[in-house]
Amino acid sequence: MSKSIFYHAGCPVCVSAEHDIIDLVGSDNVDIVNIGEDRNRIADAEAAGVQSVPALVTPNGNTLHLNFGASIEDVKG
Amino acid sequence: MSKSIFYHAGCPVCVSAEHDIIDLVGSDNVDIVNIGEDRNRIADAEAAGVQSVPALVTPNGNTLHLNFGASIEDVKG
Repeated sequence: MSKSIFYHAGCPVCVSAEHDIIDLVGSDNVDIVNIGEDRNRIADAEAAGVQSVPALVTPNGNTLHLNFGASIEDVKG
Repeated sequence: MSKSIFYHAGCPVCVSAEHDIIDLVGSDNVDIVNIGEDRNRIADAEAAGVQSVPALVTPNGNTLHLNFGASIEDVKG
């Protein structure tokens, strides 16, 4: 894959980081996934090593946790 | 300013994140500062809101803490 994936859950920290990431890498280079709404993607996020949101999974599969909005466990509820 | 600044302290988490950020935004778009070695930049990092490294300060002044390598207090020692 060549795009990064930005996982978030709609929290204020998430939205702020989303704007920063789009500014930095360009909206064409990142897929935005709200795992609070698109709950069948939670498993994808966990498989990629996402422990909290917001997080960016890079094209080479590394996960960068950006600040802290909510844990995956909190999103799962 | 138009460049981001990536603050780190040479830790393994920092080096990994540095590679990811350079891959994502391009080495021309980010200044790399090792506050473990370049200790007179610690004050700059703190002024930008950096609480731990690695961290990326975006051109618009937002600070994104990327994973967690070490706290600023630990770097100050």
